[in-house]
Amino acid sequence: MIRPVRRLGVIGVGLIGGSFARALREQGLVREVVGCGRSRPNLAEAKRLGVVDRFTLDPAEAVQGADLVFLATPVRAMPKIIQAIRRSLAPGTIITDAGSTKSALLKALEPRLPASVQFVPGHPIAGREKSGVRASSAGLFQEQWVILTPTRKTSAAALNRVRRLWEACGARVERMPPAEHDRVFGAVSHLPHLVAYALVDTIMRWKSPRPLLGYSAGGFKDFTRIAASSPEMWRDICLENRQAILQAMDRYGKVFVRLRRMVESGDECGLEKLFDEAREVTQQLSQAQELRAARKGRR
Amino acid sequence: MIRPVRRLGVIGVGLIGGSFARALREQGLVREVVGCGRSRPNLAEAKRLGVVDRFTLDPAEAVQGADLVFLATPVRAMPKIIQAIRRSLAPGTIITDAGSTKSALLKALEPRLPASVQFVPGHPIAGREKSGVRASSAGLFQEQWVILTPTRKTSAAALNRVRRLWEACGARVERMPPAEHDRVFGAVSHLPHLVAYALVDTIMRWKSPRPLLGYSAGGFKDFTRIAASSPEMWRDICLENRQAILQAMDRYGKVFVRLRRMVESGDECGLEKLFDEAREVTQQLSQAQELRAARKGRR
Repeated sequence: MIRPVRRLGVIGVGLIGGSFARALREQGLVREVVGCGRSRPNLAEAKRLGVVDRFTLDPAEAVQGADLVFLATPVRAMPKIIQAIRRSLAPGTIITDAGSTKSALLKALEPRLPASVQFVPGHPIAGREKSGVRASSAGLFQEQWVILTPTRKTSAAALNRVRRLWEACGARVERMPPAEHDRVFGAVSHLPHLVAYALVDTIMRWKSPRPLLGYSAGGFKDFTRIAASSPEMWRDICLENRQAILQAMDRYGKVFVRLRRMVESGDECGLEKLFDEAREVTQQLSQAQELRAARKGRR
Repeated sequence: MIRPVRRLGVIGVGLIGGSFARALREQGLVREVVGCGRSRPNLAEAKRLGVVDRFTLDPAEAVQGADLVFLATPVRAMPKIIQAIRRSLAPGTIITDAGSTKSALLKALEPRLPASVQFVPGHPIAGREKSGVRASSAGLFQEQWVILTPTRKTSAAALNRVRRLWEACGARVERMPPAEHDRVFGAVSHLPHLVAYALVDTIMRWKSPRPLLGYSAGGFKDFTRIAASSPEMWRDICLENRQAILQAMDRYGKVFVRLRRMVESGDECGLEKLFDEAREVTQQLSQAQELRAARKGRR
C-alpha cells in the first residue's frame, strides 16, 4: 500500500509535470494538485483538463501545505524557484525534480534548501516531440526509466517514497550517482540531440532548403522528431552538462572524421564493416524493445 | 488506361524489387514476374509469397522475353548485371532501376546498354529498416516520391511509360537531372545516414556500451532505425556519390564545430536560437506530413 500524496505542488505543468500529476491521479495516489508556471493560458488549460485542481503564478503559494513538490521546469530555472519557495516549504516536505542534468544542478540547489525538507533528485526518461500540458498523459512513464540520483543528504525514507510513487506511475526506477547520470545521458541523450540539431541546421543553411525538405523521407525526417524538443530545455542542458557533452561531442567528432576519410578514400571494407556493426547493435536494441513492448502488452 | 507489363524481370527481389512487383500485380498491371537474385532461399520465399511467378539465379535468363526490367540491387552490382543481360534483352525492352545514386551509375551503365533498349533511371524514396522480400508490400510506394533522372538517350515514350507505372503504384513522380538528384539526396538522405552511423559507432566504442544502450530512449534510439538499413547498399552509396557526400559532410562538420564552440563558451543566446530555428523547420515538416497523411486517408 502506498500512502497517497495529500497535496502535490507541480512547478512547471508541461509534458512531464502534467503527466506525473495525471499518472498519480489515475492511481488514486494524490488528493490535491496545485499547479504553477509562467503561462496563465497553459495553467488554465491544465485546470480545464483536470490535471490540476487549482493554479497560481506564484511558486511560494503553490508549495504551501504541499507534502510533495515536483520541479518540472528547464533546469536553469530551478535555483530561482528554490529561492522563491524555501520559506514556504513545510518541514518534512519532499522535493523531487525532473531535471535532465544532475551534478551542476545539485550543487546549485542543495545549499539553498532548508535542512527540514528532503530533496530526491530525479530524471524521468520520457521525452517527446511535443511539449505543454496538452501533450501530457497518465501513461507517459509506463515502462520508461526514471533515474534517481540521491545525495548524502537524501534520507532512505524520502528516496523510497519517491521511488514507489514513480513505480506506481508505471516507471522502472534506477538509482545512479549524479556524475554517472550526467556521463550516461551526455552520451545517449544529449549527444544525439546535438547531432540532430546540427543536421537540421545544416539542411536549413543549404542554398535553397525548401526543395530539400520535400524529400526528407529519404532519412532526414527521422531526425526531426528529436530536434523538435523544447529549445529552452536543450539550451539549459548544454549549459549544465557542459563537460560531459563536450567529451561526448569530441568522441563523436573523431568517429565522424574517420568516416569522412573512409568515404574520401573509397574504403569499401571499412565502410561495410562500420555499417554492419551498427546494424547489429540496432537489431539488438530493437529486440530488447520488442521484449519490453511484449511485457507491457501482458499487463 | 495503362497497358499492362507482359513480362517483368526483377533483378534483386528485396524490399524495393518485391514491393514494385506486388504493387503492379495488385493493380493488374503485370502478367508475369520473373525474379532473379543471389539467394535461392529469398527467391523461393518470393515465389511462395506470390511476389514472383518463377525465378532464376541467372540474370540473362530472367530478362528473356521481358518488356520491362527492374534493377533493384545495390548500385555497384548493376554494371556487371548489365554486362550479363545485354545480349538477352529484346529490342524495345525498357530498363529502369532503383539505384540511390545516379550520376556515376549512369556513366557506368549507359555505354554497356545496347542501342535497341530504353533506359529510364529512377530512385524510389521508400527506405525502411527492414530488407528482404518478406518486408516488401504492395503499398510501400503510396504517396512516396519516385525520382526519374532521364538522360539525353531516354525517349519520351519510355519515360512516360515508367512514370505511369510508378504512379499506378501510388507514387508521386518527379523528374530531376542526375547531378541534382545526387546533390539533393547527398544532403537529405546520405548525410543523415552517415551522421546516424557515426553516432551508433560512437556509442558502441564507449568503454562499456551495454549500460548506455539500456537508456537509449533518451534520444539514441531515434537513430537506430536509420542505421539499420542494408550495409552493402550504404557502402555502395558512399562509393558512388562520393563528391556530393563529402561536400555535405563538410557542411555538417562546420555546423557541428560551431555548435561545439557554443557549448564550450556557454553561448546561451546562440544555442537557444539554433534550437528554436530547428524546431520551426521540424514543425513545418510535420505539418506537411500530416497534410499528406490526410490526403492519403481520403483516397
